[in-house]
Amino acid sequence: MSKFWSPLVNDLVPYVPGEQPKMANLVKLNTNENPFGPSPKVVDAIRAELNDNLRLYPDPEGEALKDAIARYHGLNQDQVFLGNGSDEVLAHIFYGLFQHGQPVLFPDITYSFYPVYCGLYGIEGKTIPLTESFEINPDDYAQPNGGVIFPNPNAPTGRFLELSKVEAIVAANPDRVVVIDEAYVDFGGESAITLVDKYPNLLVSQTLSKARSLAGLRVGFAVGHPDLIEALNRVKNSFNSYPLDRLALAGAVAAFEDDSWFKATCEGVIGERDWVTSKLEALGFEVLPSKANFVFTRHPDHSGESLARGLRDQGVIVRHFNKARIDDFLRITTGTADQNKRLIEVLTGLV
Amino acid sequence: MSKFWSPLVNDLVPYVPGEQPKMANLVKLNTNENPFGPSPKVVDAIRAELNDNLRLYPDPEGEALKDAIARYHGLNQDQVFLGNGSDEVLAHIFYGLFQHGQPVLFPDITYSFYPVYCGLYGIEGKTIPLTESFEINPDDYAQPNGGVIFPNPNAPTGRFLELSKVEAIVAANPDRVVVIDEAYVDFGGESAITLVDKYPNLLVSQTLSKARSLAGLRVGFAVGHPDLIEALNRVKNSFNSYPLDRLALAGAVAAFEDDSWFKATCEGVIGERDWVTSKLEALGFEVLPSKANFVFTRHPDHSGESLARGLRDQGVIVRHFNKARIDDFLRITTGTADQNKRLIEVLTGLV
Repeated sequence: MSKFWSPLVNDLVPYVPGEQPKMANLVKLNTNENPFGPSPKVVDAIRAELNDNLRLYPDPEGEALKDAIARYHGLNQDQVFLGNGSDEVLAHIFYGLFQHGQPVLFPDITYSFYPVYCGLYGIEGKTIPLTESFEINPDDYAQPNGGVIFPNPNAPTGRFLELSKVEAIVAANPDRVVVIDEAYVDFGGESAITLVDKYPNLLVSQTLSKARSLAGLRVGFAVGHPDLIEALNRVKNSFNSYPLDRLALAGAVAAFEDDSWFKATCEGVIGERDWVTSKLEALGFEVLPSKANFVFTRHPDHSGESLARGLRDQGVIVRHFNKARIDDFLRITTGTADQNKRLIEVLTGLV
Repeated sequence: MSKFWSPLVNDLVPYVPGEQPKMANLVKLNTNENPFGPSPKVVDAIRAELNDNLRLYPDPEGEALKDAIARYHGLNQDQVFLGNGSDEVLAHIFYGLFQHGQPVLFPDITYSFYPVYCGLYGIEGKTIPLTESFEINPDDYAQPNGGVIFPNPNAPTGRFLELSKVEAIVAANPDRVVVIDEAYVDFGGESAITLVDKYPNLLVSQTLSKARSLAGLRVGFAVGHPDLIEALNRVKNSFNSYPLDRLALAGAVAAFEDDSWFKATCEGVIGERDWVTSKLEALGFEVLPSKANFVFTRHPDHSGESLARGLRDQGVIVRHFNKARIDDFLRITTGTADQNKRLIEVLTGLV
């Protein structure tokens, strides 16, 4: 610590992203990146923007992208908020919509950035245990709160909560904002975006990092009632007028325009995920039912830590969380067919 | 307002960036963009990154860019903090280094985002009047405070505070962080980066938006003592792990590697700025001495508002601030030679 720091900095416990090792020939299955590249039309659109106009500021409102997202989901532009990755969107949500002097509710096993945002902004977080089978029980979220947030599918479990149960949680909290973090929804889940016109307290966040294969470009967004979007815009415009650069805006628009690429690559990931699941089960692993681009799995005879280490020794990086209830699990991103074969080959030698 | 908003949102007064009109053939001299494009090597470097690797997250630490900046300025990597434009860097500075229960000091005429950050984070701001000639008086900053920040050259005045006076302010505040916002320093000013090894309380922020002609790419940074950088990293890693995308990182590295382009274009801007200054003075304008890529100017016989409107009617957009002490001034970005000629031509008809 230092006398120069704002005192709150002393207590910050930052989020730790999955490592990005700078080694060649890794089978990197630890950060849920898409094994397929982005649409070639995305690359073309960025190339077309790659010129002297980089000297000019981007559109601070990102209207072309808001318009593309609104059209894609049958919404109006004023129902869309853009951010520099969905993490930035979530940070603004915590700041602008979750400060009500009551605890924000989220599952005990979930995206580990939520408690970090709470720490950053001095918001109390209250974790709600998942069931024994790692499911969200909607009844648990009918209690006084300052807001509710969970991923659907959940991370790192991969389990999807059916939309009727999502709706039950939203309906049970008419005076608080319920945020559904749909980073992984396109791999077999069903989006709650269809409910935003019905519930003024529902906000749905998504990212272009996963299903649209643009983790390297940093684009996320949230959709919901214009009143919620206005709060986020006020926070954003008090923080950074231009969070999305010209190239990211152009690439993201193109990503929404190439729906056939999007659908085909999602299908490809789903097929690979299901192949990995069947092979893991054949090796004696328990695999939680996943609607994400990863699986969450444990083996009855081997600790998660030892398996993660054994994989790493042979150049396969997966994510292991040293955390109660899930320290026997591995979160394994769905890779390319070759990567997945290599994963199973190495695991076959380890179990 | 809405019952869903965090109460502080009701009182937020966001920053208003210079407008980005979507009209063709404008002479756009309102947002201090560089009339020259970025180095062709920047475009090449981004093109080389434009491939399937967009599916992968960027380096969350941006080490290649930190290294390029550190080498350029003769620093160590742990003295460099990166952000999604210098506005994001400044926001993290206010949050992580300026919350000490005492007012943060900045000039009354300055970058209008500073009071916005204060509003966002509930920090008291105290404005210190510039002198009659719009200069910073170092003695005014020797008073109890929670931090000090000012641009050098100042915006929108363009006036540069000589380095010995900057040092006097830093030395007078050994227990508080003094931030020099050097967005415009490369157009004839002298950077305080040479002082960071001497003063652990000095933080210098810069941007690639102005002199490096990359407003469209969103890259800013701060340099200072590793303790100050650590506070910023803690805040950043509690907010957004990956604020800079792969393309921005690659382009920014290349920008620091092409020093001859950088120096030649800065010289070009300086030459044009001085030409505009002499022509404005010939038309009877008062022009504050500028070391920035813009001039701040008023005419004894015409209001700033009427001149801005008259220019706009003929397709020339400049910035006018409807604010005490400076509402008779125009802030005019230095454009290309053709744009500057057109500016003078239109003004000749107006005064």
